[in-house]
Amino acid sequence: MHFSELIKSLQTGNAELEDYQVCNDPELSSGASLEKAHSNQLTFLEVGNQLVSKLSKTQAGAILIPPREELIKQAKKINLPWAVLKNPRLGFAESLGYLHPKIKISGQIHPTAVLGDNVILGKDVYLGANVCIGDNCEIRANSIIHPGVMIYDNVLIEKECELHANCVIHAFSIINKKCIINSNAVIGSEGFGFVPTKNGWYKMPQTGIVVLEEEVEIGTGTTIDRPSVGETRIGQGTKIDNLVQIGHGVITGKDCAIAAQVGIAGGAQLGNGVILAGQVGVGNRVKIGDHVIASSKSGINSDIAPNQVVSGFPAIPNKLWLRCSASFKKLPEITKAIRELNRLTSN
Amino acid sequence: MHFSELIKSLQTGNAELEDYQVCNDPELSSGASLEKAHSNQLTFLEVGNQLVSKLSKTQAGAILIPPREELIKQAKKINLPWAVLKNPRLGFAESLGYLHPKIKISGQIHPTAVLGDNVILGKDVYLGANVCIGDNCEIRANSIIHPGVMIYDNVLIEKECELHANCVIHAFSIINKKCIINSNAVIGSEGFGFVPTKNGWYKMPQTGIVVLEEEVEIGTGTTIDRPSVGETRIGQGTKIDNLVQIGHGVITGKDCAIAAQVGIAGGAQLGNGVILAGQVGVGNRVKIGDHVIASSKSGINSDIAPNQVVSGFPAIPNKLWLRCSASFKKLPEITKAIRELNRLTSN
Amino acid sequence: MHFSELIKSLQTGNAELEDYQVCNDPELSSGASLEKAHSNQLTFLEVGNQLVSKLSKTQAGAILIPPREELIKQAKKINLPWAVLKNPRLGFAESLGYLHPKIKISGQIHPTAVLGDNVILGKDVYLGANVCIGDNCEIRANSIIHPGVMIYDNVLIEKECELHANCVIHAFSIINKKCIINSNAVIGSEGFGFVPTKNGWYKMPQTGIVVLEEEVEIGTGTTIDRPSVGETRIGQGTKIDNLVQIGHGVITGKDCAIAAQVGIAGGAQLGNGVILAGQVGVGNRVKIGDHVIASSKSGINSDIAPNQVVSGFPAIPNKLWLRCSASFKKLPEITKAIRELNRLTSN
Repeated sequence: MHFSELIKSLQTGNAELEDYQVCNDPELSSGASLEKAHSNQLTFLEVGNQLVSKLSKTQAGAILIPPREELIKQAKKINLPWAVLKNPRLGFAESLGYLHPKIKISGQIHPTAVLGDNVILGKDVYLGANVCIGDNCEIRANSIIHPGVMIYDNVLIEKECELHANCVIHAFSIINKKCIINSNAVIGSEGFGFVPTKNGWYKMPQTGIVVLEEEVEIGTGTTIDRPSVGETRIGQGTKIDNLVQIGHGVITGKDCAIAAQVGIAGGAQLGNGVILAGQVGVGNRVKIGDHVIASSKSGINSDIAPNQVVSGFPAIPNKLWLRCSASFKKLPEITKAIRELNRLTSN
Repeated sequence: MHFSELIKSLQTGNAELEDYQVCNDPELSSGASLEKAHSNQLTFLEVGNQLVSKLSKTQAGAILIPPREELIKQAKKINLPWAVLKNPRLGFAESLGYLHPKIKISGQIHPTAVLGDNVILGKDVYLGANVCIGDNCEIRANSIIHPGVMIYDNVLIEKECELHANCVIHAFSIINKKCIINSNAVIGSEGFGFVPTKNGWYKMPQTGIVVLEEEVEIGTGTTIDRPSVGETRIGQGTKIDNLVQIGHGVITGKDCAIAAQVGIAGGAQLGNGVILAGQVGVGNRVKIGDHVIASSKSGINSDIAPNQVVSGFPAIPNKLWLRCSASFKKLPEITKAIRELNRLTSN
Repeated sequence: MHFSELIKSLQTGNAELEDYQVCNDPELSSGASLEKAHSNQLTFLEVGNQLVSKLSKTQAGAILIPPREELIKQAKKINLPWAVLKNPRLGFAESLGYLHPKIKISGQIHPTAVLGDNVILGKDVYLGANVCIGDNCEIRANSIIHPGVMIYDNVLIEKECELHANCVIHAFSIINKKCIINSNAVIGSEGFGFVPTKNGWYKMPQTGIVVLEEEVEIGTGTTIDRPSVGETRIGQGTKIDNLVQIGHGVITGKDCAIAAQVGIAGGAQLGNGVILAGQVGVGNRVKIGDHVIASSKSGINSDIAPNQVVSGFPAIPNKLWLRCSASFKKLPEITKAIRELNRLTSN
C-alpha cells in the first residue's frame, strides 16, 4: 500500500489528520518501531516519546507524528514522508488495520464440527475443525468459531463474535455482538461456592449465568465464573487481559481495562472505565467507583470512591503509597534513630 | 416445585429445619438474592446479613431464615412464606439442588471419541465428542467426561467423577471417586525441575504421579504438577479454585479450600482444613499446620503452626499485620516526627 | 537396571563420578526421596541437605552422595551401595533419565488429525488424535504433537519439539529446535493493546510474532502474547513455569528461569540467566540486567542493574528488604515510641 493511499484512508478515520507530505510515496507493507523500521515500514511518534531524538536516524519508509514543528522539520530534513495527526497512536492503530486487512473467514462449517440438537447457525458463520456445540445453541451471523472450541448447551453467541481455539463456553452463557474470546479462556464455569459443614464443604449449586455485553474482549486463559444465582456481567467495551480470574457474580461497568493476572473475587462491582493493572486483587463484594485506577499488585479490600488512583495492599491513595514506599526503605534507619533518641532522652 | 414440596425435601437434609409456614404455597422455579428475587424464586437470609433491613421489601416467593423472632415476625407481616433453619445457607444450597436437579448424562460414548488400546470403561460412563483416551486407562462407573478432554496413558478415573471440557490428565494420574475437574485444568503435568549446569538448565525427569483423593474439586485452568519422584497428593474433600498452581510434590490435607490464583511451590505441605485466600503464595517445602487461614496475597515462606491466621509478606499473625498496615500509612508522618525530634534533641 | 549399569552410564554423564561401591549391586527401577525409598529405588543427598541425619535409616537400594567422608562412612556402615559425584543432583537427574527412558513416539499421523493446505511434515513427526494444523505450516523431523493441539496458519515448528495436549500456537509463530510446550499453553495470542478514545478502547492490531529460541520450555497454561509490531522472543534455554503471562514484545535472554504465575508486562527486557521466583511482576518496558534474581512476589517497576538480588514491591536490594521487613513488624512499637518521645520532648 502506498503512503498516499494510507493517507486517504486516515482521512476517513478518527485520528484527526492535519497535514502530510508523501515525498517519494513509498510502498508500505507493515508497521515497526522507530529504531527497527525498514524502508517499507510505517512508524510513529507520540508527544513525550523518548525516541524523538532518534528520529533523524530512522530507516522507516514513513512516519506518523503529533503536531510539533520540530518533528516536521526533522522529517523534512531527512526527506522522510510524514503525516501529522492529533492522535498518532490511534492513526498507527488504524494504519495497521489498513496494512493487514483481516482475511474474511466465513461460511464454512468444517466437516469435523460436532453439532448438538436444535443448533441455529446464522449467515456466514464459520466453524473450524473439531468445534463441538451443545444442544439448543444459537450462533448468529458472521461469527467465527476457531478449531477446538467447546460450547455447552443453551448458549447464545451474537453476531460478529470471534472465539479462538480451545476456548470453552458453559451452558446458558450469553455472548453479545462483536466479542472476542481468546484461546483457552473459559466463560461460565462454576463459581467457587461451598458451605462449611461438619462433614466438610457442601457444594453450593451454581445456577446463574455469565453475560458478556457488546465488544467485550476476554484474554487467553482467563476464567469467568457463573454465580449460584443471578448473573456475572462484563460491561460493554470492557477489555480483559490474559489469566484473569473473574469470580461469581462480579459486575463490571462499561469500558473497563483489566490487565493480566488480576483476580476479582465473588460479588465485586466495578464502575465504568475502571483500570486495574497487572496482578491486582479485588476482595469479595467490594465496590469500585467509576474511573478508578489501581496500580499493579494493589489489593483492594474495601470500597473505593470514583476517580481515585490507588496502590498497595491494603490499597491507599497512590500519592500516599509512593511516599510510604519511599519511607519503607528507610525503616532500618528509623528504627536506629528511635533507639538513639531513646538513649538520649533517658539520660 | 411448590414450597411445601421443598419443605419436605429440606426435612431430609442437614440444614436443620425448625419451623415453617407455606402461606399460599408458591410454585418456585429457582433461587435469587433478596433484592432481585421474583415471586417464583426462593431466597435466604443469614444472621448478620446486611440485607435484613430489606426483608420487608422483597418480592421473593419464599425465604429461608435463621431462628430469629424478628425475622419470622417480618415475614409474617408481609405474608411471605418462610422456613426457619439452623443453617439457612446450607438449606439454600440444598434447595438449589432440588430446584435444579442434575440431568443425568450417562451411557453414551460419542462416535468421535478416540480410545487407545486396553481402555476399560465402567457402567454408564459418558464420553463426549472428541474425547481422547490413551492406552491402559480405566474410567469407572458413572463418570462423565465432557467433550475435548485429553487423557494420556495409564490414567485411572474412579466412579462418579466429572471432567469438564478440554481439561487434560497426564499419564499415571489417579483421580479418586466423585472428583470434579473443571475446564482447561491440567492434572499431572511436568514439575518445574532443572539442575543448573555450565551448559544451562538440565531437565530433572519428572517420574512421579498426581493423586486426587475422593471428592476433590479442581478449578478452571488450574495446574497440578507431578514431581520428579513420589507423588503430588490433594487430600480428600479439598476444593481448589481457578488458575491455581500446585507445584511438584505438594501434599494437602483433607478439606482444604484454596482460592483463585494461589501458588504453592514444590514440596510444600498443608495440613487439614487449611484455607488460603486469593493470590496467596506458599514457598518451597513450607509446612502449614491444620486449620491455618492465610488472608489474600499473603506470602508464606516459613512453617506456620496449626490454627494461626496469617497475613502479609512475609506472613505474620493477622492481628499484628492489621496494626502494622495501619502504621504503614503513617510512615511519612513517622519520618517527619523523627526529623523533628532529632532537631530538638540536638539543640 | 542394576546399580553397576547405572554407574557405567553416569561415567559418561556430566555429574563427575569420583568413586563408588556397588555392594550387592541391587536392581533399581526408579528414584525416591531418602525417607520414602524402597530397596529397588535410587536416592541422593546434597551438601547441606537436611536429610543427612536420616541416611542411617534409609531403605533405599543405592545412593548418590557428594564427596564427603562422613557420608561414605555412613553408607558403608549400613552396606548401602553408593556413588560419590561432584554434582549428585545432576547425577540423580541423569539417573532418572536412564531408569525411565523416553518411549519414542514417532512416525504416526492419527487418522483424526486435520491438516490444512500446504502443510509440510518432516521425518518421523507424530501427530496425535484431533490435532489441527492450519495452512502453510511446517513441522520438522521428530517433533511430537500430542492430541488436541491447535496450530494456526503459517507456523514453523522445528526439529525435536514436543507440544503437549490442547496447547495452541497462533499464526506465524516460530518454535525452534527442542522446545517443549506444555498442555494448554498458548503461544502467539494477541497482545493487550488498546488506544483510549472518546468512544472507548480502539483495538491496536497485533501484527507481530512470537519466536521461541532453541530448548525453551513453556509451562502449562502459560500465555505468550505477540506484539503490535516486531516480535516477542524467548531466549535459548529459557525455562518458563506454569500460568506465566509474557506480554507483547517482551525479550528474554538465554537460560532464564521464570517461576509460576510471574507476569511480565509489554516491552520488558530480561538479560541472560535472569531468575524470577513465583508471582513476580515486571512492569512495562523495564530492563532487567543479566543474572538478576528476584525473590517471590517482587514487583519490578524500574530497571535493575546486572547481578542484583531484589525483593519486595517496589523491588529493592534483597538484603535491605529483609531488614525493612523485619522492621515492618515493629511498626506499632515504633509508633508508640515516637508518641512517648514527643511527650517527653514537649515537656
